[in-house]
Amino acid sequence: MIITLQADVTDGQVGEIRALLRDGGWGAAEVRTQSGKYLVGISGKEIDIRHVGRMPGVRDVHRVSDVYKLVSRQWKVKPTVIDLGDGVKIGDGNHTLMAGPCSIEDEQQVRSTVEFLSRLGIRVMRGGVFKPRSSPYSFRGLGLEGLKMFSAIAREREIKVITEVLDASQIESMYDYVDMYQVGARNSQNFTLLDQLGKVDKPVLLKRGISGTLEELLQSAEYIFSNGNERILLCERGIRSFEKSYRNVLDLNAVPYLKEKSHLPVIVDPSHGIGVRRFVSAMTLAGIGAGADGSLIEIHERPEEAKSDAAQTLSYDEAEELTRSIERLESALR
Amino acid sequence: MIITLQADVTDGQVGEIRALLRDGGWGAAEVRTQSGKYLVGISGKEIDIRHVGRMPGVRDVHRVSDVYKLVSRQWKVKPTVIDLGDGVKIGDGNHTLMAGPCSIEDEQQVRSTVEFLSRLGIRVMRGGVFKPRSSPYSFRGLGLEGLKMFSAIAREREIKVITEVLDASQIESMYDYVDMYQVGARNSQNFTLLDQLGKVDKPVLLKRGISGTLEELLQSAEYIFSNGNERILLCERGIRSFEKSYRNVLDLNAVPYLKEKSHLPVIVDPSHGIGVRRFVSAMTLAGIGAGADGSLIEIHERPEEAKSDAAQTLSYDEAEELTRSIERLESALR
Amino acid sequence: MIITLQADVTDGQVGEIRALLRDGGWGAAEVRTQSGKYLVGISGKEIDIRHVGRMPGVRDVHRVSDVYKLVSRQWKVKPTVIDLGDGVKIGDGNHTLMAGPCSIEDEQQVRSTVEFLSRLGIRVMRGGVFKPRSSPYSFRGLGLEGLKMFSAIAREREIKVITEVLDASQIESMYDYVDMYQVGARNSQNFTLLDQLGKVDKPVLLKRGISGTLEELLQSAEYIFSNGNERILLCERGIRSFEKSYRNVLDLNAVPYLKEKSHLPVIVDPSHGIGVRRFVSAMTLAGIGAGADGSLIEIHERPEEAKSDAAQTLSYDEAEELTRSIERLESALR
Amino acid sequence: MIITLQADVTDGQVGEIRALLRDGGWGAAEVRTQSGKYLVGISGKEIDIRHVGRMPGVRDVHRVSDVYKLVSRQWKVKPTVIDLGDGVKIGDGNHTLMAGPCSIEDEQQVRSTVEFLSRLGIRVMRGGVFKPRSSPYSFRGLGLEGLKMFSAIAREREIKVITEVLDASQIESMYDYVDMYQVGARNSQNFTLLDQLGKVDKPVLLKRGISGTLEELLQSAEYIFSNGNERILLCERGIRSFEKSYRNVLDLNAVPYLKEKSHLPVIVDPSHGIGVRRFVSAMTLAGIGAGADGSLIEIHERPEEAKSDAAQTLSYDEAEELTRSIERLESALR
Repeated sequence: MIITLQADVTDGQVGEIRALLRDGGWGAAEVRTQSGKYLVGISGKEIDIRHVGRMPGVRDVHRVSDVYKLVSRQWKVKPTVIDLGDGVKIGDGNHTLMAGPCSIEDEQQVRSTVEFLSRLGIRVMRGGVFKPRSSPYSFRGLGLEGLKMFSAIAREREIKVITEVLDASQIESMYDYVDMYQVGARNSQNFTLLDQLGKVDKPVLLKRGISGTLEELLQSAEYIFSNGNERILLCERGIRSFEKSYRNVLDLNAVPYLKEKSHLPVIVDPSHGIGVRRFVSAMTLAGIGAGADGSLIEIHERPEEAKSDAAQTLSYDEAEELTRSIERLESALR
Repeated sequence: MIITLQADVTDGQVGEIRALLRDGGWGAAEVRTQSGKYLVGISGKEIDIRHVGRMPGVRDVHRVSDVYKLVSRQWKVKPTVIDLGDGVKIGDGNHTLMAGPCSIEDEQQVRSTVEFLSRLGIRVMRGGVFKPRSSPYSFRGLGLEGLKMFSAIAREREIKVITEVLDASQIESMYDYVDMYQVGARNSQNFTLLDQLGKVDKPVLLKRGISGTLEELLQSAEYIFSNGNERILLCERGIRSFEKSYRNVLDLNAVPYLKEKSHLPVIVDPSHGIGVRRFVSAMTLAGIGAGADGSLIEIHERPEEAKSDAAQTLSYDEAEELTRSIERLESALR
Repeated sequence: MIITLQADVTDGQVGEIRALLRDGGWGAAEVRTQSGKYLVGISGKEIDIRHVGRMPGVRDVHRVSDVYKLVSRQWKVKPTVIDLGDGVKIGDGNHTLMAGPCSIEDEQQVRSTVEFLSRLGIRVMRGGVFKPRSSPYSFRGLGLEGLKMFSAIAREREIKVITEVLDASQIESMYDYVDMYQVGARNSQNFTLLDQLGKVDKPVLLKRGISGTLEELLQSAEYIFSNGNERILLCERGIRSFEKSYRNVLDLNAVPYLKEKSHLPVIVDPSHGIGVRRFVSAMTLAGIGAGADGSLIEIHERPEEAKSDAAQTLSYDEAEELTRSIERLESALR
Repeated sequence: MIITLQADVTDGQVGEIRALLRDGGWGAAEVRTQSGKYLVGISGKEIDIRHVGRMPGVRDVHRVSDVYKLVSRQWKVKPTVIDLGDGVKIGDGNHTLMAGPCSIEDEQQVRSTVEFLSRLGIRVMRGGVFKPRSSPYSFRGLGLEGLKMFSAIAREREIKVITEVLDASQIESMYDYVDMYQVGARNSQNFTLLDQLGKVDKPVLLKRGISGTLEELLQSAEYIFSNGNERILLCERGIRSFEKSYRNVLDLNAVPYLKEKSHLPVIVDPSHGIGVRRFVSAMTLAGIGAGADGSLIEIHERPEEAKSDAAQTLSYDEAEELTRSIERLESALR
């Protein structure tokens, strides 16, 4: 059950609602986000919610049978639109293509990418500066200085910056230089990180775990939301399977499922998802067919020389051809 | 290595080519299909294939490094088109929608479906009469008599019949009533069945195993081809995973992969693939985005009453809406 | 529900029981096995089974809520012991080691193996003559002639023969030369084959599908049992996963699960299960720890030269050392 | 390549070795652990290591072709023994049983458990105070105060404390109260946490990711080791699969594999691994058969009332019976 409280609800009123819930065997979590106050009721007895709805301080009340609550479509039917400013919106009915290199390498690379994105009208650029790497001996990214450089150049052209945060301790120092935080697959259940991202007023793109269930993904989103941040994007990025013909299995089944279960926008990452450059464009189009709100792809001026994940990175020409296919597809589907 | 022989090659000439291969440590399988004669060379030493190409009786020779040979695109670059007659073709650049009930139930049902398909211009109807069922106590289909009825009604309207064959012993009795044999996921490595279907002159739609690799699928197709039948369609139908939100994970990554590796048409079965009615249409469109040559979907006049797999069957209205989306998408992609 | 009928039950009595079940909305399958007559009742309404129990012709009646019935421990609490004759029993509380080459290659090989097994007191020998192979160009076994040779030599020393049957059409010709039929992982849901094996009076070792669930395995066993053959062994042989360090994941969790759910003996196949020679012995001992009734392992005089699956085959020395470890472990566990 | 440096190596000598490596195209990471100094050489050209071995400051040099280096058995053949003090050792050839509740609940529970463990001679107690929970609304543990209480009571009886650390920020405050840090499956690739645990002088039990490969597990261990902490235990705790009969698939294949590839002790967690109380004992014995150095199991005075994971928790009676079986098995295997 989700009880939306009035903006001017008093502590006394909240106390009375809590007491009523307690009598019904309900747990209650009080949630204050950047745009609302809620009481989330957990697993109690059958109750006449109209009675709750009439209590002072209550604006609205909904039953939510899903284990996740505030991210559920049972509560909020209208899709959430993420507004990044300067006219950049995700989840508004158009498909948003976000692109950039796997790793930020140097200023020349960032300028070249920004130039290319500007020409194509792509408004969100990805690029890693803190890289999670299986081996401790691998390149781990340019770090905060790289992010500052990336951000400065991208903002000259009103391009929004999304980059991965690896640890709660990095959130604050990154804050001025990102427009959207990305949580990678390995951190999909790093609850300390999720808790802290709930306290920030910038959107969070949350990737599904490497073998994470969709229920776990939605519950991880609930961590962020219940800590105060309503602006979350869900991202399918490929799961592990027995099949060795590609790096991962991009699970597009997740797209219609998540769109039905949640009001949050759903993004697809075909680059990591299938992990094979030659197939990235086909899987991006497939994602649009499935109903995704956006895609996140890796591009590089010279993919063969990319500092990481060269095997899945598109060239500028390939990316440009893909944007044309996306446009045709989008106009057909609307 | 694949050596295409001339139509009038003599036994003596074949013997000499074989001798040459043997000297190079190559195994050689002689394959006679309905449209050609080949020698398939297996795993020998490095050899100058031009020398082979100049031998009497040889029309052409290709290196094929894949473990599968005759179904590989390394050998035959041009896509195979499956011609079912009466203008029904699969793999010719258009997306072919094939539809029908999970199980053939009775004459009324077949007439209703045929009527519906005719109205929409759908030319291939699916419908099971031999049903593989996990439990021995479940309904196992109407059998051959059901197939005869199904076939008679469908042919009145020039609709082609595809149905599943469970065992080599059924092939002959089904022959007069089918236009395409279907091999189900559970039989994807039933080599006796595959061998025998190689001797039939009707197309075979071969489904990937429930957890079959794509290499296994292509090798199973090689069984059919090397026994003489070149007309094979590959079908992705969902794989098993840890995710419990849907019945299977429709693995659309298989579509661009198979299109690259093989010249055979690639079909998607979103009904079994995701196994949830509400998501079947989205996954069909996703399959088209990925590049599939056709889709196989389950429909029923009253899905709730379908005798099997009701949970994944579309109503006529849903199917009709889907055909309209497919048309729009197709025109956008071409 | 399972109704055990009296040996001299009349058709009239069976008719009356069926009528009673039908009134309660129950389906009923009549099962005649080599040792009993049963009516298996499927998915009807709540019913007072004492009333059924009092009907003429009824010896006993049990509720069975599992989807599988005759193989369920809810019906038969006492473990089934498979008696192969000459004092060879499986499932009697001792661990039965069965061993032999992947493929039967020639007479010398069979004699050497039989000699070795005799010396160690191993009484069941495995060896494939019909080999399921992913590629049509691979060695497919010596066939029936190979089986005759294998059988003749093994029987000289009272060693029992187990070998794989690939297709229902092979059952009859193999009959005189096998003591136990083996159904491989790829045929775990080949229902035609299972139906026919239900009509034979020799035990059947049934392997779990490559990604088969345990419920599917038990239902496949139900096919055999409900067609008349009560002598079935369940075999865990490794499942597919994302892990590439070994060929399959031998799922020993299946052992205690199957022992609880079914009265049939449970066998482990560590050779295929992990697929790496160096680890086969450790996994065999692990299987015994888990409670398996027997193990099926691959051995060869010169494993490196084995005609198939050399990578998972033990040498005689390794096998001998393993038998000693098994003995110590067994005495500790009893 | 791993170069073990002499204790008194000078900076100048290190510089010369680095220069030599650089000329050969090798990366070099300098590692100082609590017991040694090393240079880890990464992916360079073929080199005559004897030349390296003769350089001043070098004690020893080994080739290591594995992607992980310091945790590889190619470098260190002798098994690592983890000494927790007071005579408690893991990896010394005996099987170490570690037990305790899923969550620390209150003082009475801890006293009861400590009493029980003392009676059985179990010297390591597990118990969670920081609980990773899929839902933000679930009980998240007693926190640091709970740990202090747990630790104080356990140490009265010389019982060692192992508990999970969720985030690098917790390491320091937990330090005085733990004898071994545990890294859970969800944090198996939390590289910030692993880096920091490398700087602590207490052992770390590292669990495999929920769908982590064994190579990833070993590389995560390399993170800890290369940051300075050599005392690591590897723990198999069940992987995800399609099988729904149990919570996870305890992958005992990992045991002989890890024992071969690494010198670190290998622990099995059958409680989470299979996740079904009735099967935990069988899987513990199976783990011993596979060669595990220790087991980690959940126990509770009244399992039905346990505050979390009641479904997989043994009663005291079950645990006591298990210890007896373990003793018998151990004496048989040695």
